[in-house]
Amino acid sequence: MKSAILGFGIVGSGAYDVLNRAGFEVKKVLDIRPHDELGDKLTSNFDDILNDKEIGIVAEAIGGLEPAHTFLVKAIKAGKHVVSSNKHLICTYYDELHSLAKENGVTIKFTSSAGGGIPWLYNLKRNARCDEIYKIMGIMNGTTNFILDAMISDGRDFDEVLKEAQALGYAEANPSADIDGLDTARKTAISSSIAFNTIIKEENVDIFSLRNIKKADVDYITKKLNMNVRYLGFGVKSDDGVSVFVEPALLGKGALETNVTKNNNMISLFGESVGRLSFFGQGAGKYPTGNSLAQDVIDITLGDTKLDYAPNEVKVNNSLLKRKYYIRTSYGESFDFYDKVETIGADKYIITKEINVSKMHEVANTILKEDSYAFFAGIEE
Amino acid sequence: MKSAILGFGIVGSGAYDVLNRAGFEVKKVLDIRPHDELGDKLTSNFDDILNDKEIGIVAEAIGGLEPAHTFLVKAIKAGKHVVSSNKHLICTYYDELHSLAKENGVTIKFTSSAGGGIPWLYNLKRNARCDEIYKIMGIMNGTTNFILDAMISDGRDFDEVLKEAQALGYAEANPSADIDGLDTARKTAISSSIAFNTIIKEENVDIFSLRNIKKADVDYITKKLNMNVRYLGFGVKSDDGVSVFVEPALLGKGALETNVTKNNNMISLFGESVGRLSFFGQGAGKYPTGNSLAQDVIDITLGDTKLDYAPNEVKVNNSLLKRKYYIRTSYGESFDFYDKVETIGADKYIITKEINVSKMHEVANTILKEDSYAFFAGIEE
Repeated sequence: MKSAILGFGIVGSGAYDVLNRAGFEVKKVLDIRPHDELGDKLTSNFDDILNDKEIGIVAEAIGGLEPAHTFLVKAIKAGKHVVSSNKHLICTYYDELHSLAKENGVTIKFTSSAGGGIPWLYNLKRNARCDEIYKIMGIMNGTTNFILDAMISDGRDFDEVLKEAQALGYAEANPSADIDGLDTARKTAISSSIAFNTIIKEENVDIFSLRNIKKADVDYITKKLNMNVRYLGFGVKSDDGVSVFVEPALLGKGALETNVTKNNNMISLFGESVGRLSFFGQGAGKYPTGNSLAQDVIDITLGDTKLDYAPNEVKVNNSLLKRKYYIRTSYGESFDFYDKVETIGADKYIITKEINVSKMHEVANTILKEDSYAFFAGIEE
Repeated sequence: MKSAILGFGIVGSGAYDVLNRAGFEVKKVLDIRPHDELGDKLTSNFDDILNDKEIGIVAEAIGGLEPAHTFLVKAIKAGKHVVSSNKHLICTYYDELHSLAKENGVTIKFTSSAGGGIPWLYNLKRNARCDEIYKIMGIMNGTTNFILDAMISDGRDFDEVLKEAQALGYAEANPSADIDGLDTARKTAISSSIAFNTIIKEENVDIFSLRNIKKADVDYITKKLNMNVRYLGFGVKSDDGVSVFVEPALLGKGALETNVTKNNNMISLFGESVGRLSFFGQGAGKYPTGNSLAQDVIDITLGDTKLDYAPNEVKVNNSLLKRKYYIRTSYGESFDFYDKVETIGADKYIITKEINVSKMHEVANTILKEDSYAFFAGIEE
């Protein structure tokens, strides 16, 4: 079985190189830009791929919803297996693409859509077959980890480090998807859908942005609280449903995540039989993510074409989980769930009692209306 | 396809539970001890399994070389796929069992033989398909990690912590295989065989025991050198061959391994395209290791029955790799590769220049003849 790659950008070209070196033929590459090195393999017409009976696998690395979505739907309907590195697409059309693939007797794989080079989703799915996974948690975004690591290591402030990240190409000119959490939210939704065998949408995920973290927060967290801070996605199962959220999180200095530096990722699952399994690696980049996309293509080529898809109806309810929070705000009013409050200058540094995630995000919105610089982080114990 | 489990001890019974809960039938269990809960499934006669045409997978969790080896050879010759959690067996008969399986058109899987519950060997093999792996490294033994973590955290000495580990069941009455490195050496040999597609024998692995580490070493390493110490297996590829060794190793306090506490494991691969991938989890235990054995059985049941086996002849040569070492000894003579030497009481604390692994292990034998309490550790930078 031969494959085609849609999109010859960073990830697509990385996967192309990995597959070629490993001796797996990529028959066609779709791209609208010229790429002389591809010779006859290059096409700008998707029908050349769709109508090629030798091509049994279509691997999408275009990004965005359209035309990627239309191409994959057509490929599936034509009986081709599909692979994607596109978290936006997979998160948005998770159910549609799975259902359609099942209907057409093909498989869909998207390991590279979360965790970059880390075989995270692959192993999550493999473990979910025979274990009861009750939690997933992880650093899934390299940009925010780079920023936090630099702030902590060098004592610099957020804006300065963000500019450096942009200069190094680690952060986009518009960094919102990274620092406001949408990127992590999509990866968390996809991970939670697999872990709990259900369908989690990005709008189910409560998000605290990382944007408001200041040097003063880092100092307070690392020196006064003797803890560390990382930007994490969470999916947690209870008897009555699943809580899914993205938050800056305070961790002990001995936590594994504390030593995850630069733009690396680490994602963990917690299973009843296997315990905690953590996966560390590069969360982005041409060859790491290209490797991950290529692995899915190779799996299918070698015969792994089964698709089990029978999602449960699981209620997403962020009021099911209680945890403590760190808050830094100049907002004057106190709430009854505040536990310890220290005032430094114009700001209060607050540790809360246990409060459910929904309630905390609701109150945070109230606080942010009055103090748009307030910062919130969960405490992960 | 149904399976049989050989040996209903800790791992075998764990795998049995995991498979049952996941809906995969275990038709027979071989054990010479009575187990009423198994009813008709229990047999003490291997022929009951060998001659059962419904049983397509034989999963061995007996441990030791015989009768496990004879049983697996018979199973393979009868056309059954085999799975094993037995590092001693896999390390000793790596080539024989693979060749025989290939000849008979069956597969052999042994993920649970290194890393316990961690899908380490599984992912190592998956990545080796399309990447050039140039290094593997890891904490592969829970007992020695428990001992080091307790020594570092509590400031206690080796003998006291070893006794506690024995009382907790983390260490055997005869702890030699763990603390003298044979357990890690076998796991390192198996891992290196997969990573570099060759056949590494346990006698190829140079080993420094952990037995001689003292509180004084931990103090010197953590306070004077501001580093950490872990017990690691290494496989490193160069143009001319592979170096394979097991050593206590000094790591920076920011290293991922530094935050691997208790009896946990973490093993890493370094690939040209994927970069560093690290896998953390429980390196032993009924359900973690049982899960790992069960996963191999499930993979085969779901159709993953291909076996690629065409090992390269790769020279194992520990003089190919140079690194620095930490030595603590009362041995008086100095060597020209000593760099920094500090004398405290009767002992010298030495940091060496770069020296090749073979040479260091050779000199260590000279030193140990005169000072049987000398301690050696590589410096991992």
